[in-house]
Amino acid sequence: MVVKVYGPHCASTKRVLVCLIEKEIEFEVVPVDVTKGEHKNPEYLKLQPFGVVPVIQDGDYTLYESRAIMRYYAEKYRSEGVELLGRTAEERGVVEQWLEVEAHNFNPPAYDLAVHVLFGPLLGITPDPKVAEESEAKLVKVLDVYEERLSKSKYLGGDFFSLADISHLPFTDYIVNKMNKGYLIKERKHVSAWWDEISSRPSWKKVIELYQPPI
Amino acid sequence: MVVKVYGPHCASTKRVLVCLIEKEIEFEVVPVDVTKGEHKNPEYLKLQPFGVVPVIQDGDYTLYESRAIMRYYAEKYRSEGVELLGRTAEERGVVEQWLEVEAHNFNPPAYDLAVHVLFGPLLGITPDPKVAEESEAKLVKVLDVYEERLSKSKYLGGDFFSLADISHLPFTDYIVNKMNKGYLIKERKHVSAWWDEISSRPSWKKVIELYQPPI
Repeated sequence: MVVKVYGPHCASTKRVLVCLIEKEIEFEVVPVDVTKGEHKNPEYLKLQPFGVVPVIQDGDYTLYESRAIMRYYAEKYRSEGVELLGRTAEERGVVEQWLEVEAHNFNPPAYDLAVHVLFGPLLGITPDPKVAEESEAKLVKVLDVYEERLSKSKYLGGDFFSLADISHLPFTDYIVNKMNKGYLIKERKHVSAWWDEISSRPSWKKVIELYQPPI
Repeated sequence: MVVKVYGPHCASTKRVLVCLIEKEIEFEVVPVDVTKGEHKNPEYLKLQPFGVVPVIQDGDYTLYESRAIMRYYAEKYRSEGVELLGRTAEERGVVEQWLEVEAHNFNPPAYDLAVHVLFGPLLGITPDPKVAEESEAKLVKVLDVYEERLSKSKYLGGDFFSLADISHLPFTDYIVNKMNKGYLIKERKHVSAWWDEISSRPSWKKVIELYQPPI
């Protein structure tokens, strides 16, 4: 059964795609043009009632929320491809901790920065330089904690690549390659080495080559 | 080994406490007075570098982020107490989906509503009635999706109580019992029945009896 992934061009969907590639799971993509509001179409809302991407369909199993989908495949196909959850309950606990940190500390300011520097007009939002500035200031503090963490372990979840790292790829890519704010990463030695490491994985290179963002 | 739980009076910590009780795991609490800024003390920041509650210590294992801590104990002690993750990878996937919905769709407006109706002054934030109003409007839309979901299954994750339900307890309690906004729940038949069910569990009753919030 080939997994159908909706909305491959959007940032959060890219988490899922990297995970599927790392787990060596076959998939096909279904484009959802968010610039035309296709994620708010009645047919799409039957799959994802909150009207956001991504969603997957795997036979008659439908699942949404990128981090939940990643966990599902990392868990279900534990012995295939790269192990992305750690080998013990304690290792997985730390992976889960950094997945949550990504969701609650990193992603909100990174998303706001992207909206107010990059995507605003596309989403009908007037970019506000003050929000951009405040978001960057928040990111600076978060990345200072990351620098300390990554001085002690090669990856966020430990000495192994995991879902916690994958989850940071799309928005860190925006910061470095779309917003000219790579200094946020580069001026932190350990964060920079970590970014070089995770962004050079073939899975990520394949995803950004195949599915450019909608701008 | 007794688990040490920091900050039992705060909302997010209560998720962890309910989970530990459901899993029949012994714990002791370490108060953290956020109204005095104890969560920003250097000693506390060594445990939780972002300066938020909760943190747990279990022997020499330290973990933060309430939903990560819940997953750790639900997974590690899978065969003890109540099963909180579902029995199959597919069931767990749906539990994870609704945990993510709680974190990204329900919690942000519920938290903002609590800040701008209840906690603002305590946190040094001037309550803004416009933010309160917008947050409530967002919650209304989210709860409409919940009503549809809960018309098809007894709990959010399926026909079994899970981490997805636990995660909603603290802020739904604020909505119903501290902010006089119980109508948001009560006027939705299935959400109301779900709330009656989950809030009457002995684990939750024990937690709110023992650890009142800091206001």
